[in-house]
Amino acid sequence: MVQEKLCWPGSAQLAPVPAVLVGCGDGSRRNPYNLITVGWCGMACSDPPQLTIGVRPERFSFGLIRRTGEFTVNLPTKALTADLDYCGVVSGKAIDKFKERGLTPVPGDTVKAPLVGECPVALECRVKEALELGSHWLFIADILAVRVDPGLVDGNGKLDMEKAGLITYAHGNYYAVGEELGRFGFSVRKKQ
Amino acid sequence: MVQEKLCWPGSAQLAPVPAVLVGCGDGSRRNPYNLITVGWCGMACSDPPQLTIGVRPERFSFGLIRRTGEFTVNLPTKALTADLDYCGVVSGKAIDKFKERGLTPVPGDTVKAPLVGECPVALECRVKEALELGSHWLFIADILAVRVDPGLVDGNGKLDMEKAGLITYAHGNYYAVGEELGRFGFSVRKKQ
Repeated sequence: MVQEKLCWPGSAQLAPVPAVLVGCGDGSRRNPYNLITVGWCGMACSDPPQLTIGVRPERFSFGLIRRTGEFTVNLPTKALTADLDYCGVVSGKAIDKFKERGLTPVPGDTVKAPLVGECPVALECRVKEALELGSHWLFIADILAVRVDPGLVDGNGKLDMEKAGLITYAHGNYYAVGEELGRFGFSVRKKQ
Repeated sequence: MVQEKLCWPGSAQLAPVPAVLVGCGDGSRRNPYNLITVGWCGMACSDPPQLTIGVRPERFSFGLIRRTGEFTVNLPTKALTADLDYCGVVSGKAIDKFKERGLTPVPGDTVKAPLVGECPVALECRVKEALELGSHWLFIADILAVRVDPGLVDGNGKLDMEKAGLITYAHGNYYAVGEELGRFGFSVRKKQ
């Protein structure tokens, strides 16, 4: 049933969006390891694989990413919801969030930015372009490597993302990924 | 428990991501209304509100968006999963997907691109920048208006996104948005 829609001014109402832990810094005194929660994140291109993150320039992590040109995108699980939330609220300027939350920084393979050991999947990223858009800068980054917990890989060597228990974010709330509704292409397969 | 992670080449493993119906065209003979399903979509900036979509140049919708500079982002619900899937598989070059799927094109308020009447929330977007990244072009677009079904607005005039029954996409599968895990800021409120 089609209702006549209200018309509101433009705002950030895309939902649901990923909510990811972005690891940054290189472990040096000038660029210590830090974590920031990012909801403004999306895939941009499949080949070569690229994604985007939007970060406010006043965030401590912004300078780390600008100076090092690297970051990691770590996919959190239900068990990490409170850590994810915390890393989006508290600044890393004075606090070591890894230590504070008992999270394990793991050296990247292709980048100096740290992975979050507790996240089952992490993407190692190198900034390709940085665009000043307004409240946020958009970083477009190459995904150089995908790091995966061996426990998520099935007998055929395939990643089973469903096992991970990932979460999503909509309109101020974190949600579990719920029931499966279908596999890509099912609407056409069904018809035949 | 931290496992030692496998290291795979970079690939498009951000998950879960939005899966949205993008409306495009202006209803003219050259630029007929069309729908395309987009998973490479993310928020880019809060103020002014901007989002990104990644589209392959060989898609019929690509030319429509390039020529008109406009599109809509429509948030689908569980009931629309098969339509969402269909619009990602079938080309609009020879088929009117609105007609084929019984979906209702609704004129935009600020753009000529059509909304999907059956989607409870739609964002009207104007392209600001188009970047050729590889397999996909990235469109960065201003969100000019948010269109909302009145049924989603609570007594205080606030949008209740949870009512919508939105869906998300991970690794080739569509999923319902599941149980709520917490509200933004809960980790800090709890502590106090």
